[in-house]
Formats: sequence, C-alpha cells, structure tokens
Amino acid sequence: MMKSVLVINGPNLNMLGTREKRHYGIKTLKDINDEILKNALEYNITVEFYQSNHEGDIIDKIHTASINHDVIIINPGAYTHYSIAIRDAIGAVDLPVIEVHLTNIYNREEFRSKSVIAPVCKGQISGFGSNGYLLALEAAKLIIDEKK
Amino acid sequence: MMKSVLVINGPNLNMLGTREKRHYGIKTLKDINDEILKNALEYNITVEFYQSNHEGDIIDKIHTASINHDVIIINPGAYTHYSIAIRDAIGAVDLPVIEVHLTNIYNREEFRSKSVIAPVCKGQISGFGSNGYLLALEAAKLIIDEKK
Amino acid sequence: MMKSVLVINGPNLNMLGTREKRHYGIKTLKDINDEILKNALEYNITVEFYQSNHEGDIIDKIHTASINHDVIIINPGAYTHYSIAIRDAIGAVDLPVIEVHLTNIYNREEFRSKSVIAPVCKGQISGFGSNGYLLALEAAKLIIDEKK
Amino acid sequence: MMKSVLVINGPNLNMLGTREKRHYGIKTLKDINDEILKNALEYNITVEFYQSNHEGDIIDKIHTASINHDVIIINPGAYTHYSIAIRDAIGAVDLPVIEVHLTNIYNREEFRSKSVIAPVCKGQISGFGSNGYLLALEAAKLIIDEKK
Amino acid sequence: MMKSVLVINGPNLNMLGTREKRHYGIKTLKDINDEILKNALEYNITVEFYQSNHEGDIIDKIHTASINHDVIIINPGAYTHYSIAIRDAIGAVDLPVIEVHLTNIYNREEFRSKSVIAPVCKGQISGFGSNGYLLALEAAKLIIDEKK
Amino acid sequence: MMKSVLVINGPNLNMLGTREKRHYGIKTLKDINDEILKNALEYNITVEFYQSNHEGDIIDKIHTASINHDVIIINPGAYTHYSIAIRDAIGAVDLPVIEVHLTNIYNREEFRSKSVIAPVCKGQISGFGSNGYLLALEAAKLIIDEKK
Amino acid sequence: MMKSVLVINGPNLNMLGTREKRHYGIKTLKDINDEILKNALEYNITVEFYQSNHEGDIIDKIHTASINHDVIIINPGAYTHYSIAIRDAIGAVDLPVIEVHLTNIYNREEFRSKSVIAPVCKGQISGFGSNGYLLALEAAKLIIDEKK
Amino acid sequence: MMKSVLVINGPNLNMLGTREKRHYGIKTLKDINDEILKNALEYNITVEFYQSNHEGDIIDKIHTASINHDVIIINPGAYTHYSIAIRDAIGAVDLPVIEVHLTNIYNREEFRSKSVIAPVCKGQISGFGSNGYLLALEAAKLIIDEKK
Amino acid sequence: MMKSVLVINGPNLNMLGTREKRHYGIKTLKDINDEILKNALEYNITVEFYQSNHEGDIIDKIHTASINHDVIIINPGAYTHYSIAIRDAIGAVDLPVIEVHLTNIYNREEFRSKSVIAPVCKGQISGFGSNGYLLALEAAKLIIDEKK
Amino acid sequence: MMKSVLVINGPNLNMLGTREKRHYGIKTLKDINDEILKNALEYNITVEFYQSNHEGDIIDKIHTASINHDVIIINPGAYTHYSIAIRDAIGAVDLPVIEVHLTNIYNREEFRSKSVIAPVCKGQISGFGSNGYLLALEAAKLIIDEKK
Amino acid sequence: MMKSVLVINGPNLNMLGTREKRHYGIKTLKDINDEILKNALEYNITVEFYQSNHEGDIIDKIHTASINHDVIIINPGAYTHYSIAIRDAIGAVDLPVIEVHLTNIYNREEFRSKSVIAPVCKGQISGFGSNGYLLALEAAKLIIDEKK
Amino acid sequence: MMKSVLVINGPNLNMLGTREKRHYGIKTLKDINDEILKNALEYNITVEFYQSNHEGDIIDKIHTASINHDVIIINPGAYTHYSIAIRDAIGAVDLPVIEVHLTNIYNREEFRSKSVIAPVCKGQISGFGSNGYLLALEAAKLIIDEKK
Repeated sequence: MMKSVLVINGPNLNMLGTREKRHYGIKTLKDINDEILKNALEYNITVEFYQSNHEGDIIDKIHTASINHDVIIINPGAYTHYSIAIRDAIGAVDLPVIEVHLTNIYNREEFRSKSVIAPVCKGQISGFGSNGYLLALEAAKLIIDEKK
Repeated sequence: MMKSVLVINGPNLNMLGTREKRHYGIKTLKDINDEILKNALEYNITVEFYQSNHEGDIIDKIHTASINHDVIIINPGAYTHYSIAIRDAIGAVDLPVIEVHLTNIYNREEFRSKSVIAPVCKGQISGFGSNGYLLALEAAKLIIDEKK
Repeated sequence: MMKSVLVINGPNLNMLGTREKRHYGIKTLKDINDEILKNALEYNITVEFYQSNHEGDIIDKIHTASINHDVIIINPGAYTHYSIAIRDAIGAVDLPVIEVHLTNIYNREEFRSKSVIAPVCKGQISGFGSNGYLLALEAAKLIIDEKK
Repeated sequence: MMKSVLVINGPNLNMLGTREKRHYGIKTLKDINDEILKNALEYNITVEFYQSNHEGDIIDKIHTASINHDVIIINPGAYTHYSIAIRDAIGAVDLPVIEVHLTNIYNREEFRSKSVIAPVCKGQISGFGSNGYLLALEAAKLIIDEKK
Repeated sequence: MMKSVLVINGPNLNMLGTREKRHYGIKTLKDINDEILKNALEYNITVEFYQSNHEGDIIDKIHTASINHDVIIINPGAYTHYSIAIRDAIGAVDLPVIEVHLTNIYNREEFRSKSVIAPVCKGQISGFGSNGYLLALEAAKLIIDEKK
Repeated sequence: MMKSVLVINGPNLNMLGTREKRHYGIKTLKDINDEILKNALEYNITVEFYQSNHEGDIIDKIHTASINHDVIIINPGAYTHYSIAIRDAIGAVDLPVIEVHLTNIYNREEFRSKSVIAPVCKGQISGFGSNGYLLALEAAKLIIDEKK
Repeated sequence: MMKSVLVINGPNLNMLGTREKRHYGIKTLKDINDEILKNALEYNITVEFYQSNHEGDIIDKIHTASINHDVIIINPGAYTHYSIAIRDAIGAVDLPVIEVHLTNIYNREEFRSKSVIAPVCKGQISGFGSNGYLLALEAAKLIIDEKK
Repeated sequence: MMKSVLVINGPNLNMLGTREKRHYGIKTLKDINDEILKNALEYNITVEFYQSNHEGDIIDKIHTASINHDVIIINPGAYTHYSIAIRDAIGAVDLPVIEVHLTNIYNREEFRSKSVIAPVCKGQISGFGSNGYLLALEAAKLIIDEKK
Repeated sequence: MMKSVLVINGPNLNMLGTREKRHYGIKTLKDINDEILKNALEYNITVEFYQSNHEGDIIDKIHTASINHDVIIINPGAYTHYSIAIRDAIGAVDLPVIEVHLTNIYNREEFRSKSVIAPVCKGQISGFGSNGYLLALEAAKLIIDEKK
Repeated sequence: MMKSVLVINGPNLNMLGTREKRHYGIKTLKDINDEILKNALEYNITVEFYQSNHEGDIIDKIHTASINHDVIIINPGAYTHYSIAIRDAIGAVDLPVIEVHLTNIYNREEFRSKSVIAPVCKGQISGFGSNGYLLALEAAKLIIDEKK
Repeated sequence: MMKSVLVINGPNLNMLGTREKRHYGIKTLKDINDEILKNALEYNITVEFYQSNHEGDIIDKIHTASINHDVIIINPGAYTHYSIAIRDAIGAVDLPVIEVHLTNIYNREEFRSKSVIAPVCKGQISGFGSNGYLLALEAAKLIIDEKK
Repeated sequence: MMKSVLVINGPNLNMLGTREKRHYGIKTLKDINDEILKNALEYNITVEFYQSNHEGDIIDKIHTASINHDVIIINPGAYTHYSIAIRDAIGAVDLPVIEVHLTNIYNREEFRSKSVIAPVCKGQISGFGSNGYLLALEAAKLIIDEKK
C-alpha cells in the first residue's frame, strides 16, 4: 500500500511569495507544494497539503492524521514559539513529525530561536528556504524505509 | 430551581484514553463525563459538557455561561500556560471558576507548573486523575450550598 | 477616492460596558464604534469594524485588509502579550497599523506591560480609555494626509 | 480493618480564626477538624490531627506516619515555599500525600505561588477555604478505594 | 478662563532636525512647537514650551506646573528609561501627564522599550513622529473637556 | 499602666562577643541587654529578652507576645533571609515590629541584602552595631507615645 | 568645639506635606527640620539643612561637607535607586553617612527596595516617618560620642 | 569541474558506534562516511572527511576549506554550545556551512539546546541520526545546483 | 591527647537504609557509623555521632563542638540548600568543617546542586555513597596531622 | 588649521588625588591635564578641559562641541553606568568620542563593568591610570591623521 | 592483575608551586605526583600521570584510557567550567571518573562554582589542597575493591 | 638591556585582511605587525609576534613569556569571551598584560561585550582598529618606563 505524508503550514504561510520576500523568497505556497508533489511522485508517496491560520484547526488536523498518514511535516509558523497546545497534539498522536522552517530561526529576533514544538518532534530542518520541505520529504522517505 | 455547572475541557482532551495513557489514564472523556453526570444527579445539579481545541470557542463559551450556569469547571489543557485571553474571559464573567488538571502539573516539565489562569479562579485541584473532576463537582456543590 | 480604516478589536472586547467597569469604563463597544464613526464622517473616511475572540480570524482579517483599507487600528486585547502570529500577520501586510489600549498597560500586572505586537506597528496609544480610538483615528488621518 | 488519615497543619495555622480573617476566614482549627471528623465518620475512616510550628517536629511526624496511617493530608503553611527538608521527609515515606491550602496561593504574593512540596505529593487542592480539607478527605477516600 | 498645557522636552531634543534625521526626522523643535501652537489656538488652549537637558530642572518645572497649567505633555527623552526622580515628581503633582515619544520605542534597542515614567502617566503616545505632540494635544483637550 | 517591649534575638546571636568579633564587636548579648534595660528604665518601659536558635520557638514567642507587650524588637539573624514562617507569624499578630541588624546588611554577601521580614515590619535599623537596639528602643518609645 | 551635622534631602522632598500625604504624612520639610533642630540643640550639635532636586548639586554639596561637618544624614529620595554618582561622592569623602527613608522602602514597589547608596553608608533607618530623622540624629550623636 | 564538500566532525564523534549507543546508534563514523560517499558519487560530488577533538584544528581546517571545497557540512559535537572561535572561523570563510546533529538537541539537557554556531550557518538539520548527514549532502547539492 | 571528630547528620538521614534505597543504598545510619568508628580506631581518633531533624539543634551542637572536637564532618541533608543559619553557625566556630554528601548532588534536581554551606567549609566530598564518610575521616586525619 | 580635542571629566573626578588614592592614584586632575597639554603641544593639537558633576551640563557641553573640536575624550565617571542621556548626546553629535577610565572597570564591582556609553563611542581605553588620557590623546591624533 | 589509575591534570596546573601560591600552595606538580605514587604503591595500584593545557589532548587521552586503566582521577583546571567536550568524552568511556579541585571552588569567583564536568563523574572532592589527590586515590581504591 | 614585548593574536586573526573587511579592515596581520615593529624600533623595544588558533598553544606561550618578555599584548579573538583557561594562564604569570580588540566589542552581538580575560589584565583598548596595537605598544612603553 502507498505511504502518505501530511504537510501542515501554519499562520501567515498562505502569504508566501506576496510579502516580505527578503525573508521568505518569491515562491508562493502553491509553487512549493508543486515541487513537493513532484518529488513525492518519484518516491511513490502520497501527499496531503493543509494550511490554516487557526491554532485549533491545526490541532484538529493533527488528531486525525494517523488515520491516513505515516509522517507529518509541519511548519508551525509563529505558533512554533508559544503553542504548547500544538505541542501536546503532536505528543498525542503516534506519528513521526518533522519540523521545517524556511529561514534560519537562529539568526533573527531572539524570540524566534525558541521552538516549543521541537522537543516532541523527530527532527528539525531550518534555513534552506523552500528546499527545506524537499529535505523533509526525503527525511520522511528515509523514516518510512526504515520501518519497512 | 435546579443549579447548573458547565464543564469545559480544552485542547487535546478529546484524545483522552486513546493516547499517552501513562500520563492521563485509560478513561475516555465520555467515561469521565458519565461519572460526573452520575454524581451530579445525586447532588441534584444539571451539567453541560463542552470540549474544544479552539481558544476563541472557549472564550465565546465562557462569555455566555452566566446565562444558564452557576459554576464553571475548566481544564484548560495546554492553554493553562499561556492563554491570557481565556484568563481575561474568566475575569469578565461573574461566576466562580474551578481549575482542574488530571496530572500533578508541578512534577512534569517546568513550563507546565505555571498557570496563567489560576489567579482568576476560585481554586485549583490537580493530580488526582479523573477523580479531580468529581472533587471539583463536590467543590462546586459546596460553593452553591454556601450561596443559598 | 475615499480612504478607509479597519478597526479590529480582539478577545473579550465584545464584553465592554458589561463587566469590569472599573478598568474599562461603562461604554459598550457599540457606543465606542458610534463615536469613531461620527469623527470619521468629519474626516471623510470610511470605517469597517471587526471584533473576534479568535486569533485565527483576526489573522485572516488582517491578510485581506490591504484590498479595501489604508490603515488598520487594532486593540488586540490579551493577544497583545503573546500572539506572535498576529505580529507576523501585521508584518506580512503593507499597511500602517496603530495599536490602541483602553487602559495604561504599564501600571497593571507586569505581564500586561509587554506587547509583542508593538515592534511591527507604526505607533501605540494607551491609557486614554475610549478616547484612544479617536486619537488613533486622528493619527490615521494624519498618516493618510502625509501620503497624499 | 479501618483506614486512617493523618492531617498535618504547619506553622501559624493554630492561629486560624483569631487573626487575618480576611484571608483565612473565621473558623478556628478546631472547628475545621470537627468538620473533617464528621465526614470521616461517614466514610468509616479514622483521623489523627497534628499541628506544629516546628519544622523538625513535622518531619518527625511524617517519618512515623506509615505505621498507623494510609494517607497524609498536609497544609505546610509557610514551609510550603522553602522547606526542602519536609519535601525530603515526604519523599522518604511510602504514603500518598495530599497538599491543601486554604487560600488560592496563585493570586497572592509572588513567593507564595511556588511550592517546593508539590512535586512529591499526589495532588494539590487550593483556594476553597476550609472546604479544601473536606475535598482532600474525599480525595483520600477515593485513593483508598482504588487500592482495595 | 482659558486652559493651559505645559509641553516639556527632555535631554537632546533641542538637537532635533540637526542630527540623526533617520530616527527623528528633519523638523527642528521650533518647527514642532509652531505646529502645536497652531492647533492649540484652534482649541482655545494656551501652551508653554520648556526644554532642558538637566534632570533637576525638569523636576523643578513639574513641581510648579499646577499653578498655571491643566495638563502636562512630556517627552522625557533618555530620562524615560531611568529617572525615578522625574517619575516621583509626576507622582507628586495633581495634573494628568501625557507621555510622548517621537519614535516607536518598542522596535529599537531593548533598553528603550522600558519606561519608568509610564506607570504614573495618564497615557502614552509613541511612534507617530512629531504628529505625536499633536495627538497628545488632542488628548489633553479631550481630558480638559471631560473635566468641565 | 507601664508599657512593655519584647526583644527577640534569633540564631547564633547567643554567640555574640565570643566569635567573629570583626563583624559583630566584642559585647556579649548580656552586655547589650543590660544597656537596653538601662535606657528602658529611663523611658519607664518594661523589657523582656528572648533568644533562640529554633525557628519554631521564635514563632511561638511572637504568637503570645500581644498578651504582655506593646512593641516587638527583633533581630532575626539568618532567618531574616528566608523564614517566611516568621514573616507570617509577624503578620498574624497585631503589634508594631522593629527589625534590627548589628551590621549594614547591604555591604556584605549578596544574599544578606534581602530581608523577607522587612515588608511586614514597621521599620528597619541596620549598621549601627549594638547601638541599633538602643535606636530601636527609642523608635519603640516614639511609637508608644504616638498611640497615647 | 561644637559638632555639626549636614542634613541633605534629595528630589521631590521639598513637596513634603503638600502631596501624597498617604505615603509621606502631613508635615512639611520645614516642620521636620524644626524638630531636628530642636533635638540638635539638646545634643549641643549644629545642623545645616540642604535640599535639591539636582543630582550634580547634591554631589557638589557632599564634596565640601567635610570642611564644616562631622556626619551627613541623607535622604536621597529617588536617587537612592540609581545614582551611582552620589554613591561615589559619598565614597570620596571621609565622613560617616546615615541613610534615612520616611517610608518602609521594602513594602512598596519592587524597584524601591534597592538602594545603591546603602553599601557605602554607615547605616540605614527606614519606615519611621519623620521620626527617622530624629533617630538618625540620635545615631549621629552616638557616633560622635564614640569618636571623642 | 567536479564540486566538492568537506565533512567535519568534532570532538568525541570518533567514538560513534562504540559507546552511548542509546543516544547515538550503532554505526561507526566510518560506516556513516561510507554512506555519505555512496550518495555523493550519485550526485557527482567529491567529499573530504575530517574529524578532530581539537578546537584549533577544526578552525585551521575551516580556514583552508575554500581552496578546495564548495560547501562545508559540520557536526561540531560539544563545541556547538560554546566555541565562538569556530563560529568566527565559519564567519571568516565565504562558503555555505550546514550544521548537522545526530540527535534532536532540543529534547536533551537544557545546555545542549543552544548552538552558538547556528546563527552563522546556512541551515541546521537535527534529530535524524546518521541520516542527517545524507540530508545535509542533499542540501549541499541543492545549494550547488542553485549557484550554477 | 587523643583527637576527636564530630559527625553530624541532618534531617531524614535517620531514615537511611529503610527508604529510597535506589538513591541512598541499603546501609542504615548505624551501619555507616560502625564503619567510621572502625577506621577511627585505626587512626587513633575519637568520634561522636549526632543526628537531628531540627535545624536549631544542629546549630546548638555546632556551637559547643569546639570544646571537645578538632574537626566536624557534616552531612546537612536538605538544610544544605537553604540553611543560612547553619552556615552562620559554622562561620561562628573555629573548627575545620568537612561537608559530605552520599550522592553526587550535581546530577540530581537543579535545586540540590547549590550548597549554601560549602563556602564556609574547608572542603566537600560528594558522590561516593557511605564511603564519603570514610574519605572525610581520612581528610580529617590529614588536617589533624598537618596541625601537629 | 590647528585641530582641537575636548577632554570631559564627569562626577567626582574633581576629587582626584585627594581621596581613594588606592584606586585612583595621587595625581590631581590638574596634574593630569598638564600632562595632556604637554603631549598635545608636541602633536600640535589644541585642548579644552571641562569637568562637571552635573549630567545636564555635560550634555550641553557635548552638544556644542562640534563647533570648535574634532575629537572628544570623555571619562564619564559614574554616569558611565546609567546615563542614557549622555549616550544620546554623544549619538547626536558627529564627532568621534573616546571613552577613558582610570581603573580597569572590569575587575571592580559588577555594576561598574557595564558602560551604557561604550556602544556609541569610537573606542574605549581603561585600566592605565592617568596614562589612559595620554593614550586617548594619541588615539585622537591617529584619528585626526587618518581624516586628513 | 594489578589495577591502574590515570591522573589527568588540566591547563595551568603545570605551573603549580611557581605562581599564585596563596591559592594553590607551594608544592609543584611533581611533588604531588610523588606523594600519589607513594600511596599507590601501598595500595598496590599503578598510576599514570598526564598533564596538558590542550582541551583536545585531554579528550584524546580520556578516549584511550579504558585500555589500560580502571579509574580516572581528573583535575580539569579551568576547563571544569566550560568544556562540554571533556564532559562528553567522560560520558563516552566506561570508567568511573573522580573530579578533584585543589581549592574550595565554592568560595571563590562565582563562575568557578559551576562544574559542567561534575554531573558525569562518580564523585567530587574539593578544598583539601594536594591532599585531595590522595583522598581521590583512596576513593579509587574503594571503588576498585567494591568491583572485585 | 633592551626591553621586550610579546604580541599574541588568537583564533581567526590570521585571516585579517582577507575576509569580513567591513568589521576588521583591509590590513593583513603582517601589515599590522610591520607597523608595530616600526614603532617598537623608535621606542627601542624588541617585539615577538605569535598567532595561533589553538587555546592550548596560547596558554603554553603565556607560561614561558616571562623568561624573555616584559609585557604581553594580547588580542584573544573569540577566546576573549569564554577561555577561563587563558585567563588563568595570565593570572599565573607575573607580567602586565594589555588586552586589545580591533573592533568596539560593546556595539556588536551581546555575547561579545563580555570579556572573561579583562579582570586579570592591566588594561583594555578596544575599537581603534589596527591602531589599537600601536596604542597598546605605547601603553607597554609607559609601563616599562614607570618600572625603571
């Protein structure tokens, strides 16, 4: 049976490619998702994309992820820094979760260098721009392969 | 006229009994609610149950609670630790609020030992597992009795 | 063409005039909005009012504000103190944003003296009660005039 | 065989009902103990009462508690906030311990919101005045019932 | 009788318009005062202007302000961040005081985000450049009107 | 009727005059008490002296002080820095309490500059050696005179 | 030859008796000085009084004090909490300095409990209202007597 | 011309596979290097491997890297947390540097969650065990591709 | 004349060998004392053993130690972390004091890694279980030998 | 045209050579100024000397310095540690400023190791006693030479 | 077979006996090693001595220690306070490690009271001068004896 | 006999003039050394130059410096901020040491404003670029002159 990855993008990431291009680049979220999809096809992996600005919606989505998915890739946006509720949602499901950040969160404002999500994730990839999602997909594939 | 208690459960508590049983036990939220209901019947108290993963929904619910209810019992889940908005909602209604936690929040991660909700509540009960709700109901009954 | 201002009020501000009058005064949110509207008419400015207790809704609203509006006036309520997601939403749109607080947030509880929103706003007005909105409207008018 | 609970009250609690009634109410410690005793009779539980202002005496009492008792209920008074020695005494005996506070220790002076005892207790009940002891007794009963 | 406002500018504000124009704009203090005066005329309010680099002089000025003035508008410059003596002077007179800052003090160096003056002021206006003084005058007018 | 002052000395002060003379001088506690007594006679005030190294004993003594005494003078020794229990005992009696320290506690080790007792005392006198007790007695007399 | 004491009062103390009477009482600085003078006469001590709101003036005064005076009594007002320059001035003269505060600085705002002056003074007296100056004069007399 | 990557491993990583297998797995450093080499061949990239326990040696190596290499992959081991000298060495060369950690450094001891190296690196990959190096190589390839 | 060592054990150490054997081992305090005694005989040293849970008693014991003893070995138990009174008692006697801990206090809870006693002791030995007392005795012997 | 340097000395430096000779040496300020003058003659540079204990005076002096001077040498004395107003004055003029301290401010009290002035100065010289001024003059000369 | 102990001395300990004799005594490192050797002979234990100022060299030495040695005694010198790399090296070998300090590191500069090495060592001995090494050897012997 | 100065440069300073020219200027280390040498010739002083990226090497060099040199000038590079080992090496030799930094370390990243070396040096010169070395040489000359 085909394996599946859920890609969650948190608040303000729907604005990618339209604003603050200096920090986040010129690609829209759709551009990035297309690249992910293309690589996933090569790996023979299904992908579902989900974006929301609502903390509660992201929690709801994580809760139901284990029914259809094998790995979660999440860029929690600003919730990275304070949403213990998302942290607990990740802790409450039995899936490996990969945290992605477009920018290097360690050379921006001090408060961005702290992730409350990181301790419950499998691993973290930050600073590679939209390539970070492709690396996360690669990591997801390696995790899936090891479980076989 | 019959008195009424509103029981609010915050984020991830809908997952009770399905995950992380080591911390939270094997009972589902429905199991717990049935126990509360049984005791409430003995006390001749009506109970309404509400669960949401959404901070805004919980605030909306608290705002309208004083129409039908005499006491609120709340387990704010992870919002305990940072939702000043829920704190302000509690401060904005004129009902006694009892804070409940399944686990002893004082012997887990450091960040869980801080409740921003506690200062505006009547009291706090933590560490007794699902029995905490029954103790909170007992406390609600004692508060109602004193007001008569 | 007529200029437009979006006035956003965050969590619990729908309760104005009904509770905690010592801190926030006796005017309802509708009373305040009527005053703003009256002044806006004099300035020949259109105003849209929006209130929500939901962090995600406020973010969604900010994202779409640049289509119809020239300035945002926001009282983020309790989200002032921790919503980096709203901060990032403000950073992601290209409009001047004016932060308003009814009370002087610097002589209340310590945690209220910190605004995570302030660094990305044009300016801040606090402590003048409902007059703060009128001053913010005046500030909005001055900003609009300078851009002409 | 009948089960037994030891109720320990720490420093200054012998003064209850005589001073600072605004914080602690008008009941004397004897009034409270009589109420506990009445409820204990209904539960078929024996209770021993102990009060001391001496840190060392309380430690001695805890050390010998396991001979005759099944649960300890303790209101450590001001020792709550710094007596690591009492904490270690609790850690050294094999009984469930329930921490009680008359007042909500989370909306008073900052230093009262920290309990060095809490991490080694089963659970904590605070803010319900003298009712807190009755709730603690109820909690003790539930713990005893679960062990049967 | 005509109402009067005292406008105090603290250290280095005499240098406005001559240096660090990136932060503080190109207007001189005289330019700003002229604008304030023009608006004050429309409001039928008298204004006295005072600037000093000397902490003690500013304290002396505040002490005598209640004889001739109804409201103080103050931009304490760098004294904002450490002069408890000016804070106490404000606390010692019975006039509403409005704190103004040209820049948004919350997006500059960390030490500038702390005002020791703010807790004793009526309100604070920051980030609107020289317009901040005009908004403060408007606020002063609203305060005077409410007292009538 | 003759007025009475209770002079309490805490841990290690029984060692005065025998050790660490560089810090505390060569007078023994008895020498100091004799001086206090002599001055008290002139003021027509009775004095009781009490010294203990036991935190609990000092609390007991404070509890019963209001029966026979009008003012307490206390040098809490090292308990100054952490005994919240003694602080609460002072808070629980209705007598003015004057805190005395032989040395200037503000130019010794950092931890000695913090008194948890000070906020509940009438006032504090430190740094004048054994003269501090005489000044405290003088202060006690002034307090007694004002009450007449 | 007659001994002399210099009494320095810092910023805002010229306002004594006119404002904030709840904190500082109803006596004016002149009333207090008269009382000091009366006692000084009995002790056969000369007193000079000096008050300034200017940090630099107080420093200048301290520098020249050793020519005519034997002891300095200083109430540094708000400078207590941050004027390292006054601290250094005290350190630079060879006179015993007694620090006085009208109020108990340990039960007011947190920042008032820190004196940067204290470590270089002989001793500190706080919380006894205007009587504190009389106690300080008494302390000065004891110091002078010991030197003879 | 063929592109080249330098892989630097810091202190104690020569011990991989021999000790603390619970944290770091059973592969030796040679096993990992072989895997990297295999993937590099597919990408048509040359790899040089370097391991040292000496801070100075690592700095020397980084200084000369730009002669032969296009990207550096570095696992600085314990130097991650305090070697500002290695940080400056990275800052002094003009190559993109990718930081790798075998474990999730955010759920171990507190001191391991701080990387002084991260702010000067292109990006960071942590928590994927030895796969982290393969992901870093993939990231290196993407960076090289973008530069063409 | 025979030399003498006083061995003081603080709170809860009377419980050794009965509880928390994982941390403290299976030997009782009597077992340990017997071992110390045996070694002391070989060294021709007298030993007195003292255990108390009372802070005041330990202080009293330290005060009188110099009459009969040459060295104090102390395991202050939980008082290690906050008893400034015991610290001052040690500072007040003229004997070398050796601090012993059964466990390595530096790899347990954070609060156990701070000893307020250590700065006034000759030295500290921790982490060697009951052998720590034998090493302390050896250290005592070396100190005594050096004094001869 | 001849170049000019302004040498500013802050509070208490007028006392040099008369007090605290252990820290600051035996030379008076006049002695030091004479040495500076002698060297300046060799460099063909004019020097103006200014000393004040008044923060406001020093600010006034800095503001007008650019009319006649090319470099400022300043020893801000105790204002070094808290005068943000002097910092801003330096920031407001367009001259290179050299900060000098007689003593090594990094091996005295902790609070002296922080200079709020340093970040806006060209450079800092500390610890060389009065030679520090000569080195600062040398530095001023080098700066002037580079500008030619 | 004969047991073996490795004694490692870190940076600057080669200077013992030549400098800073007030802190470290007059014995050279060779003198100390001779004493250790003498005692080791009595215990029938082999000793290897190693000193280096190089962090990397010490790590290399620890890595290979388990081949020939049964216990490591280490005085890490200044590396005690920051070398997480040495800490990890100790964690990576399977030998008991005893940490020794000549001085009482708890009554010197604050930064010396923190050992990053201590949590991974068997135990710590500090404050006994060169005797500390002899006590460590004794401890090593006791550990070896227990393993037999 | 001719006097001699040792100039030590720490990690990454061998890269001067090749990278990060914005911060450190365009001169190479050799250029700077040539300038120092030229001035030294005028002063009739011998200079030895030493650069290393290795902490241990720098310590070794300092240890042997007193044989041939009279003063050390050191720019410890990044080791400035954490090498307590170098600090101790300086403390262990009997030579005056002058700390130099090319840049003003007080207006860069926060962590660069802390020097662990400074408290044991004679003085510090920072912010004057390569001229800092020339000023340090001048300072060395003045120190040597004073010793004659």
